[in-house]
Amino acid sequence: MNTDRRVNGPHLVRLLGDWRTGPLPTAYAGLASRLRLLILDGRVPLHTRVPAERELADALGVSRTTVAAAYERLREDGFLRSRRGAGTWTHLPPAGVSAAGPVATLDDDLIDLAHAAAPAPAEWLHAAAENAVTQLTRFLPTHGYDPLGLAVLRGAIADRYTARGVPTTPDQILVTGGAHHAFTLTLRALCTPGDRVVVEHPTYPNALEAVRWAGCRPVPAPFGPDGWDLEMLAATIRHAAPRLVYLVPDFQNPTGFYMSAADRATVVELASRAGATLVFDETVAELWLDGAAVTPVGLDSVVTTGSTSKAFWGGMRVGWLRASAAMVRRLGAARASMDLASPILEQLMAAELVPKTAEVTTARRSWLRASRSRLRERLALRLPSWTPNAPAGGLAFWVDLGAPVSSALTISAERHGVALAAGPRFGLDGAFERYVRLPYTLEPPELDQAVDRLAAAYLALGGDVPDELPLRGVT
Amino acid sequence: MNTDRRVNGPHLVRLLGDWRTGPLPTAYAGLASRLRLLILDGRVPLHTRVPAERELADALGVSRTTVAAAYERLREDGFLRSRRGAGTWTHLPPAGVSAAGPVATLDDDLIDLAHAAAPAPAEWLHAAAENAVTQLTRFLPTHGYDPLGLAVLRGAIADRYTARGVPTTPDQILVTGGAHHAFTLTLRALCTPGDRVVVEHPTYPNALEAVRWAGCRPVPAPFGPDGWDLEMLAATIRHAAPRLVYLVPDFQNPTGFYMSAADRATVVELASRAGATLVFDETVAELWLDGAAVTPVGLDSVVTTGSTSKAFWGGMRVGWLRASAAMVRRLGAARASMDLASPILEQLMAAELVPKTAEVTTARRSWLRASRSRLRERLALRLPSWTPNAPAGGLAFWVDLGAPVSSALTISAERHGVALAAGPRFGLDGAFERYVRLPYTLEPPELDQAVDRLAAAYLALGGDVPDELPLRGVT
Repeated sequence: MNTDRRVNGPHLVRLLGDWRTGPLPTAYAGLASRLRLLILDGRVPLHTRVPAERELADALGVSRTTVAAAYERLREDGFLRSRRGAGTWTHLPPAGVSAAGPVATLDDDLIDLAHAAAPAPAEWLHAAAENAVTQLTRFLPTHGYDPLGLAVLRGAIADRYTARGVPTTPDQILVTGGAHHAFTLTLRALCTPGDRVVVEHPTYPNALEAVRWAGCRPVPAPFGPDGWDLEMLAATIRHAAPRLVYLVPDFQNPTGFYMSAADRATVVELASRAGATLVFDETVAELWLDGAAVTPVGLDSVVTTGSTSKAFWGGMRVGWLRASAAMVRRLGAARASMDLASPILEQLMAAELVPKTAEVTTARRSWLRASRSRLRERLALRLPSWTPNAPAGGLAFWVDLGAPVSSALTISAERHGVALAAGPRFGLDGAFERYVRLPYTLEPPELDQAVDRLAAAYLALGGDVPDELPLRGVT
Repeated sequence: MNTDRRVNGPHLVRLLGDWRTGPLPTAYAGLASRLRLLILDGRVPLHTRVPAERELADALGVSRTTVAAAYERLREDGFLRSRRGAGTWTHLPPAGVSAAGPVATLDDDLIDLAHAAAPAPAEWLHAAAENAVTQLTRFLPTHGYDPLGLAVLRGAIADRYTARGVPTTPDQILVTGGAHHAFTLTLRALCTPGDRVVVEHPTYPNALEAVRWAGCRPVPAPFGPDGWDLEMLAATIRHAAPRLVYLVPDFQNPTGFYMSAADRATVVELASRAGATLVFDETVAELWLDGAAVTPVGLDSVVTTGSTSKAFWGGMRVGWLRASAAMVRRLGAARASMDLASPILEQLMAAELVPKTAEVTTARRSWLRASRSRLRERLALRLPSWTPNAPAGGLAFWVDLGAPVSSALTISAERHGVALAAGPRFGLDGAFERYVRLPYTLEPPELDQAVDRLAAAYLALGGDVPDELPLRGVT
């Protein structure tokens, strides 16, 4: 990565502030931890050159060894890269971290509020898996590669679109490893390095990373107070002349905004006029919680993406895109350069579940409505200075913290046993430091415990927390 | 894709030859079909500008409409891309086609010799799937994302390396969506556009595509008559100063060559001296058929990739890479920009199977030895002018056709109901037109039928085929 952005020694020293007071045992670890935070929250932007070891050591008044050890640690963790003669620069942080705060593995004691993804509807999933194993038998005599997706699954997905009001044929469906993978394929097939991609601001962090990895430039379109600002979006598209426009019209991630049918039509027209391909990420479209079911966009000119991961379970990795048949073939073409196909058993399981979407999501919506209420109540009780939004669907609140403390809160929360996605992860250049996304995707007792831990984490930052209830410690 | 390579009208007319004599109904379809062949077999290389519609129409003496319709068809199929003002250039062809000849869907009547992948060992797979469903239950209460892989699977893979003679800990293993996906992640994390990647020539077609999509340049290192030419490889690495060196040391794809332990050590040294990361693709290492088991390379400085797709089944999409723990974290970091994680059920199934690798592959080796003999005998009988090599392991023969007819044979074979991977798919710039890869991964009756159809396809090209046996027609 060639970069012209730099942060010099004295500036970095100011940003680092009082890094030696942390609880970490050694000086280099404290320095590494603080630098990691600065990179995570965007105060030192990605792809920015950091000072040479000696320069920073001099500026900080520490030994060069300390700085060298801190840099090495950050290199190992993927936050820095170096090349001889070219210096050291900030880099895309590791998967779980970059997208969503610290990595919480499934075996951890950490309560994970970094992922907006609910537990599986267990009976449905289990039954689907059992039926899929029965179906598997007839595919075992084949070599097992089917790059566009199994006919039975493409048919089921097409039928679901048709049932939702948009007649669709199986050849308009490409099966992928998730909605995000579908977007990555779209980038790969349609964009060349240097292309611009218009995105909402804030938006889904992994979409931003995918755009950057494709060598393209994300161009942010800001929201108005109540949702999309179509005049601003029109101006952004006109000025950027983008190759793609990537929007999340249903319960947008992270703001929860919902785009009206009229506004969707306007956006389609804007993209079309600019010669850009419009991608509508409909991952949570079936998780409307108030109001009525959402009709998907069914225009041949629009690529829509969807997934089993929110309606069913994130532990399944099946998604899809819907487009014209010709576009499906073109996008399928990009796949061999990344991975080869989706697993057969997963596809069979998805083919069992997709026809049952209406029943499964009815149950899921009830569960989500209850957990949404529970989290809202608990936040009002323990963290009344925070202001959650009021999403009509989806999986998370976008919470106004009242002060630019999101990154600090994320670090403090991790120490208190909660993984968070800090606001700046959803934006460019350190924006959204006043916000944090809080998913209501846990069972009620865990949600309560998470809020208790967050209150303790906020208190540790000097935040204002009512003390009428005893705060539970972290085990 | 900006490209300076061009093919002009008169040159393309020469390459097109007698395109109007084909069996296709309309002129544009005939032209499109012939152009598709030229792109497929590398005679018009990828990323090469083709003449403007009017120029080619004039050179061919046909209407501009015919050329426009042919170009449009090829754009739809992913073989051409155009941009206003920038012209039209050849493009990565669709998934199945680019890697391995025509796309054979799993429901087709086409006999698929394009993929070197055997049917599943059905009882093992079925039992593993059933056990995985039982295990699944305990993961359903989680959100299901685990970007580095489930602990149980990372442990099983590490144990398998240890059992094969290379002590390995779970944190040295990253679970991926296949060995190819592991290589793609490595490219994404370690390379920047313009970097050079040394590859064997011929090599695995999807590896070439992945290198190109990463914006890197594949630098071919040719083989000697009996395998790797280490002097040539050393010179190539020295001149190219590559970021990565990608080699398939075990029963190389497609040549079947096997690299000795001494040569592996030399290659490690060569890469290290050049500051390049060495990737050893060990996908088929456990499918040695003659001789004895292969000890994997277990150096921390080397990235090795592996997969369940050859030892078990291609319909499972679980692979891995082994590297230092720090490298694993760094490579895992690249994943969120592509897809998010591997499916839980698949990982559980792999965790069931990997500890049984020795038993499953023992059975699989017997099956492959028998099918290897069967294909060799049948080829000797029906196509005695072809010369298969003698691989000591792996899944396919690399067959010397005695004349540069591989692409023509591939097209003819498709018409006769066999999908093939033409020799030029394994090379750069149209090399290997004298070769075709023939996997012995079908049940004996299908292998026989495939060879019968190939003999008919070869005869249709004017090839020399003994006529003592009646040739079966294609239904």
